[in-house]
Amino acid sequence: MNKTIETILQHRSIRSFTDQRLTEEEIRVLVESAQSASTSSYIQAYSIIGVTDQSKKRELAALAGNQPYVEKNGHLFVFCADLYRHDKIAGNKGEDVKASLEGTETFMVSVIDAALAAQNMAIAAESMGLGICYIGGIRNDLEKVAEILKTPEYVLPLFGFVVGHPANPSSKKPRLPFEHIYHENTYNVDEGDFQKHLTAYDETISSYYENRTNGKRADKWTEQITQNLKEPKRTYMHRFVKEKGFNKR
Amino acid sequence: MNKTIETILQHRSIRSFTDQRLTEEEIRVLVESAQSASTSSYIQAYSIIGVTDQSKKRELAALAGNQPYVEKNGHLFVFCADLYRHDKIAGNKGEDVKASLEGTETFMVSVIDAALAAQNMAIAAESMGLGICYIGGIRNDLEKVAEILKTPEYVLPLFGFVVGHPANPSSKKPRLPFEHIYHENTYNVDEGDFQKHLTAYDETISSYYENRTNGKRADKWTEQITQNLKEPKRTYMHRFVKEKGFNKR
Repeated sequence: MNKTIETILQHRSIRSFTDQRLTEEEIRVLVESAQSASTSSYIQAYSIIGVTDQSKKRELAALAGNQPYVEKNGHLFVFCADLYRHDKIAGNKGEDVKASLEGTETFMVSVIDAALAAQNMAIAAESMGLGICYIGGIRNDLEKVAEILKTPEYVLPLFGFVVGHPANPSSKKPRLPFEHIYHENTYNVDEGDFQKHLTAYDETISSYYENRTNGKRADKWTEQITQNLKEPKRTYMHRFVKEKGFNKR
Repeated sequence: MNKTIETILQHRSIRSFTDQRLTEEEIRVLVESAQSASTSSYIQAYSIIGVTDQSKKRELAALAGNQPYVEKNGHLFVFCADLYRHDKIAGNKGEDVKASLEGTETFMVSVIDAALAAQNMAIAAESMGLGICYIGGIRNDLEKVAEILKTPEYVLPLFGFVVGHPANPSSKKPRLPFEHIYHENTYNVDEGDFQKHLTAYDETISSYYENRTNGKRADKWTEQITQNLKEPKRTYMHRFVKEKGFNKR
């Protein structure tokens, strides 16, 4: 196994960082790593906003659910789906491409583009010995995020991303069994396999929590998932993305 | 610069592969690398379908725009946003979580989850000396893709992904200037900066094509982008993702 795959397989989210800021050079390497990811038909439909202003970081931390690591980290990035430049470019050439930009297809393209870039940044950061954590919590209030970061039309903040020097170790969370994620030739809907995989996985997860909490927790994954999905979250999203110009048709 | 970052920065899409198939072991390492990516609230909302059946590969290649490398490669994966298991799990516990699953928020979560996993696979593959290419072309006809792969409700194929031993080298395509992708604290809408970045980038891209084609092509990026976006593509997507249970509310 090579060093890169070791880094990938050792991933765990880090939620506690030292005060050490990333250097300009580190930020540049991370952003250039992000930019090297594949991009659909060369569209490059994303932007990355680095947040260094401490009051902005505090506001973002508050709306993301008061997670202290959103405020205290080596650097905070916000990844955005971005079609602003495409709209402008076409407009400058006298073309109206809104019908394209506003489609669900282009929405998917821009979200995928941004995510591929972010994951390149994650691996680059971890290969440098830094820790990372995605901050989906900023989607609690994207209206506010857009205000704080002054994003224009056709820009949709998707998630935050913190990087820094880890202060505390954390442990790798086991993933669903290979057989449950990976199908061959057709999607396997066999009930028996389904239950077998999930029963085994629930046991893995229970022991994982038991070990980590000295027996205080023994949650099963299927219970966590059901619990999390009971109440629809962020129901404003359907409206909001349209208001920003995405996913309208 | 470490080896992993070198791999990341050296990325180029590979569209021509030798006949050498990936081994079972390689496939497993790639899928496990994919699974190690971050996942929103541990939801693991994606699946990966490996396609080895030659007639299925041929069908997918045809609908993806007759790209020969979709048929001829070391292995073809199809990444899907997947909430099927979540629906089943909750159903088995007597809970109805459809309101959650069908929201735009969860649609975004599942698309991001799948993309993060795919990009981990890309870096893992490239670190092994393999080449990769994303196949957005399968979105030409997802109805057909879903039929071929027999995906159930709440599963949305997003893109194909080919891996293999490169037969021909290809060259790294320059990305937008760092300053154009990366903003600090607020999104920069300055017209002057915008034009300056894009003029410089258009020149870079023109020379890139001129060098590669011995002067036969000298496209500018802003022209390509405008051209590509003139006609809305895959306009069925808005309807289709809803039919599959995503992005409905």
